[in-house]
Amino acid sequence: MNSENKNDQKHQEKMAKQKAKVDAAIARADKEQGVVIVLTGTGKGKSSSGFGTLLRSMGHGNKVGLVQFIKGNWGDGAVVGERAMFQEMPLMTHKMMGSGFTWETQDKSKDQEAFDHIWPQAKAMLQDESIHTVMFDELTYMLAYKLLAWEDLKEALESRPKMQNVIITGRGAPSALRDFADTVTDMKSEKHAFQAGIKAQAGIEW
Amino acid sequence: MNSENKNDQKHQEKMAKQKAKVDAAIARADKEQGVVIVLTGTGKGKSSSGFGTLLRSMGHGNKVGLVQFIKGNWGDGAVVGERAMFQEMPLMTHKMMGSGFTWETQDKSKDQEAFDHIWPQAKAMLQDESIHTVMFDELTYMLAYKLLAWEDLKEALESRPKMQNVIITGRGAPSALRDFADTVTDMKSEKHAFQAGIKAQAGIEW
Repeated sequence: MNSENKNDQKHQEKMAKQKAKVDAAIARADKEQGVVIVLTGTGKGKSSSGFGTLLRSMGHGNKVGLVQFIKGNWGDGAVVGERAMFQEMPLMTHKMMGSGFTWETQDKSKDQEAFDHIWPQAKAMLQDESIHTVMFDELTYMLAYKLLAWEDLKEALESRPKMQNVIITGRGAPSALRDFADTVTDMKSEKHAFQAGIKAQAGIEW
Repeated sequence: MNSENKNDQKHQEKMAKQKAKVDAAIARADKEQGVVIVLTGTGKGKSSSGFGTLLRSMGHGNKVGLVQFIKGNWGDGAVVGERAMFQEMPLMTHKMMGSGFTWETQDKSKDQEAFDHIWPQAKAMLQDESIHTVMFDELTYMLAYKLLAWEDLKEALESRPKMQNVIITGRGAPSALRDFADTVTDMKSEKHAFQAGIKAQAGIEW
């Protein structure tokens, strides 16, 4: 056997092992239910990952719901790229928190009012069996700033339709939420272009 | 001052501080250039995050390019949700590696052939100034299985148009690529529904 053939064989064995692992994991996982996915951490990619998953879901013909709890904070009037796309997607119901919570507002009672206005609409999505996946973008900040109590969120999640999926994004997901969730990804920022003085740009950061 | 007002003031100070931090960081970052973003790690969300960013870019009217180096590995014939959506997006050029590298093939020379066929097309995207953002989905495996040499990738990235962004996804990004990149997010899997025996489902996992 020449060395190329040996290499080929090694590669084949490696791939077969990998395939066996994947197949076994698939066979073991037989509970059918919707999942709660938490995308947290300081790294870039939390919201865009959620949007990508909604895209995936819609690609299968499913209805999805998205509630954005924080307005883009890259400057007033900036057109946020994904929103232009969402408007073209008939399978998506998209809501944004009214007055637009941002770092700019600095007014807790106004924020609470805006939250109290949007929350019943968000909860309604969690009661709608026709919605395959609900995404609450940047919801963790609502917990951190105590606009929303964990117990209220938990109750809403627990009483949702069994097959519905929920994606929750934002930094600093509290441990109660992490414990409750089925899938948690902690996006660690190893480095960010911003730190090297590279300007944030439309189409990447917003 | 009653306790609610005190709380409000505290909140306002916290928000103002946060806003000042964000503003200062924005002011410091004045280099205008495209960035190389690496989304790696074992957590769920790497590819979907890249797709979400492409969506964002297209929402600003930009052209994007996507090359997928691994075919979905959730079973033959599975309709992969995002692909159905991509086909409806006139701003996206979408290519897939020919024979479809998966854990199923187990044939290195066939994989190399398929890679050698797609790579010139991928490189052509890196030479096309009209493409705002290029995504190479699961490219890290091509490096890991030595179908692609780091030096070749590096050269292609270095000679691309100055304002072009590149997103590279996949587990186990090598350190040379991490060092080269402008932004690196390491997506740590804290837990995954799969491990708790929950079946993977269309619209979430593929």
